[in-house]
Amino acid sequence: MNTLMRRVAAEFFGTAFLVAAIVGSGIMAERLAGENIAMALFANTIATGAALVALILAFGPISGGHFNPAVTFVDAIEHGVPWSVAGCYLGSQCVGAISGTITAHLMFGLPAVALSHRARASFAQTFSEFVATFGLLCVIWGCSRKRAEMIPFAVGAYITAAYWFTSSTSFANPAVTLARSLTDTFSGIRPLDVPLFLTAQFCGAIAATLLFRWLVPGLHTSAKAILVSAGPTA
Amino acid sequence: MNTLMRRVAAEFFGTAFLVAAIVGSGIMAERLAGENIAMALFANTIATGAALVALILAFGPISGGHFNPAVTFVDAIEHGVPWSVAGCYLGSQCVGAISGTITAHLMFGLPAVALSHRARASFAQTFSEFVATFGLLCVIWGCSRKRAEMIPFAVGAYITAAYWFTSSTSFANPAVTLARSLTDTFSGIRPLDVPLFLTAQFCGAIAATLLFRWLVPGLHTSAKAILVSAGPTA
Amino acid sequence: MNTLMRRVAAEFFGTAFLVAAIVGSGIMAERLAGENIAMALFANTIATGAALVALILAFGPISGGHFNPAVTFVDAIEHGVPWSVAGCYLGSQCVGAISGTITAHLMFGLPAVALSHRARASFAQTFSEFVATFGLLCVIWGCSRKRAEMIPFAVGAYITAAYWFTSSTSFANPAVTLARSLTDTFSGIRPLDVPLFLTAQFCGAIAATLLFRWLVPGLHTSAKAILVSAGPTA
Amino acid sequence: MNTLMRRVAAEFFGTAFLVAAIVGSGIMAERLAGENIAMALFANTIATGAALVALILAFGPISGGHFNPAVTFVDAIEHGVPWSVAGCYLGSQCVGAISGTITAHLMFGLPAVALSHRARASFAQTFSEFVATFGLLCVIWGCSRKRAEMIPFAVGAYITAAYWFTSSTSFANPAVTLARSLTDTFSGIRPLDVPLFLTAQFCGAIAATLLFRWLVPGLHTSAKAILVSAGPTA
Repeated sequence: MNTLMRRVAAEFFGTAFLVAAIVGSGIMAERLAGENIAMALFANTIATGAALVALILAFGPISGGHFNPAVTFVDAIEHGVPWSVAGCYLGSQCVGAISGTITAHLMFGLPAVALSHRARASFAQTFSEFVATFGLLCVIWGCSRKRAEMIPFAVGAYITAAYWFTSSTSFANPAVTLARSLTDTFSGIRPLDVPLFLTAQFCGAIAATLLFRWLVPGLHTSAKAILVSAGPTA
Repeated sequence: MNTLMRRVAAEFFGTAFLVAAIVGSGIMAERLAGENIAMALFANTIATGAALVALILAFGPISGGHFNPAVTFVDAIEHGVPWSVAGCYLGSQCVGAISGTITAHLMFGLPAVALSHRARASFAQTFSEFVATFGLLCVIWGCSRKRAEMIPFAVGAYITAAYWFTSSTSFANPAVTLARSLTDTFSGIRPLDVPLFLTAQFCGAIAATLLFRWLVPGLHTSAKAILVSAGPTA
Repeated sequence: MNTLMRRVAAEFFGTAFLVAAIVGSGIMAERLAGENIAMALFANTIATGAALVALILAFGPISGGHFNPAVTFVDAIEHGVPWSVAGCYLGSQCVGAISGTITAHLMFGLPAVALSHRARASFAQTFSEFVATFGLLCVIWGCSRKRAEMIPFAVGAYITAAYWFTSSTSFANPAVTLARSLTDTFSGIRPLDVPLFLTAQFCGAIAATLLFRWLVPGLHTSAKAILVSAGPTA
Repeated sequence: MNTLMRRVAAEFFGTAFLVAAIVGSGIMAERLAGENIAMALFANTIATGAALVALILAFGPISGGHFNPAVTFVDAIEHGVPWSVAGCYLGSQCVGAISGTITAHLMFGLPAVALSHRARASFAQTFSEFVATFGLLCVIWGCSRKRAEMIPFAVGAYITAAYWFTSSTSFANPAVTLARSLTDTFSGIRPLDVPLFLTAQFCGAIAATLLFRWLVPGLHTSAKAILVSAGPTA
């Protein structure tokens, strides 16, 4: 029980810092780079990728370092984590993500929360979210059996690339998407456009999971073992 | 048989994502950076290098993570992979690469395929492709005996550098070159210029392989062992 | 005794090079990038993050690679390092940091020392320092039990991100803050604003330490073991 | 004998590729970035740092991956490599470096060689070269006993930082300095200014070596063992 609380807390803090990094660096980039949008997105990209490396390294040994409801959801499907724990993770990730937005706003002297007006509604962007999350889960499942200790670097590198190779800049994370609807800055998304993004993300995650069921037959069982061994030992 | 299909599928998805990353980030960079070509190429570079790290980490344990006919060809010459498997890899890489271009176009709301008009035909660029692929294979062979687990980082870092130190921006990959002839965007190449690039790439790969035959005498046998151990265990 | 002197010397050189990297790259960036502040901060960011990776890798095996009084302070609280040693570290870090500023100035042909006129006094910036140092210690404690050999990369990546996601650009280090008050260039801070930054930094470090006491119960004891094993063996 | 030829050849190819990366990316950066010198230097920086990672990973297991007469010189002083071998390395590095400049010029359609007109003659720049090479050797010696497998990343990260925190952009390598006097492009140095740079580099390397003799008493013997174990096993 106590152990579960610690894992849930690790998901809270990890997701909060991840969103604070995304939203905060977006604000800083917009302020400094002005109309040079390429430079702004590039700074936003490096801050996000680097934050992922640091946070998964730091909180991974405690909770697995998901910070992402799509990851937790398919991990539960594959029996890597029980559904009861997955439910706690999901709640914690959403609350953590929103706390991250608020923290970023306070660090830059902005009101705690503001609805975004930035439209992200095209078919191209929705399809991008499907591809981005499909790729993210390919990277995680692909590393999880033989290269689990490399996951922080693989995920950080993947998202760094995906910010640029998708037209949506790869949210690829339902909790992050939710929290980014609450900031009217560089990294925001109009609340209206959130449901379609979430749908695409879960579909992408599930598709990659089905692919890897066939691609690496023994993955399932070993992934479970990895999570257990990565869990808190206290 | 089943195992071969999995390896071929891994080459397909890895090459598709690699090309999607190259072409997609080129489109994004061109749109955001406008006439600031240095910034555009830099974003394109980081996206490509980071994608290589993530993809070789993820798919490497299944297929070896070639994603490149020149690599598969010299690996077959060195008996690292049987010629029959090499043939399947090559087909899969080409189909995967073209799928990557199409995916990138759909993610940015463009027609599925368009022939490039970007000329890349000088002697300097052809020589660059020879040097770039020679260097790529030096890096792969150099790491393959004692530092095989570092290959994802070595290849990602090498291509990051090579985008800038060659006048061709280092395609260094026949399947990728083919697929980039089908996009009329930042990263494209005129179909007319493809054959010379391909020739230079294969020559560079063979030259590096001959060099390393002499440079590291035991490489041959151990490389084979690595591939086997990196192969699917199911 | 002799061993202590070596550890103290390692903290001196490490902190000196870290500050030289921060201040020196700030001067170079300001000179080359002019009014393009985003580009200047980005170059400053990458130089700082990369320097941290190299310096913690190099001096970490000798002294633990703190280079930071806030880190040494909470490490002493957790009995990782005796208070007498901590005192020596703190003095060495401060003298090293100031030497770093002087070295940077000499490398760019500036007077050895100059008081900064750059105001960094808002609530938002002070709160940013609390968050930045809280996060830094989360990363260090989070890695210290099972992934201690990854700390150089985790810290380098974290600070790379934190330069952009905080409005203060994440000093997160009392000795560095002190030394940056002595340069009237890009990375400077008005001496008047130093005390509030220092207070926020120590509070952030202590808060993260209390969190990890609960989050990873066995951390305390094992952190001690890590430091000992990382110490000089001669 | 045969083994020595292989090691010397590895130093040749490694140094040639390193210089080709420095000079080539400088030419590309100058062409694309025009008067945006910060962007040009940044691209040059990342290409150099990434090339170092890839090349030391690839050729390090064969020759130790020095690519730098200052490194070979102090390694010989510390008995890591016999003086006769050191002499061969030095010659190979110089010839390799010049070949790298020529290769870069041919890849960009320029005449094979051209004397540089870029003055780099101030006290600040000479002092910078002392500091840069002192720091480089600190990083190498600091990693060489317990973290030798991390040297490629430590050196790549260090040089990435040092390009920005020194006013000379950290040549820190006599062979590279020589070769850069033969290109009249972005990364060039006036032949007249070479001797002072070389003197400062050797002094910095020796100073760091003397420091580490005291700082890590057992280093000497173990460094030797590392080189042997990293040498060719054939």
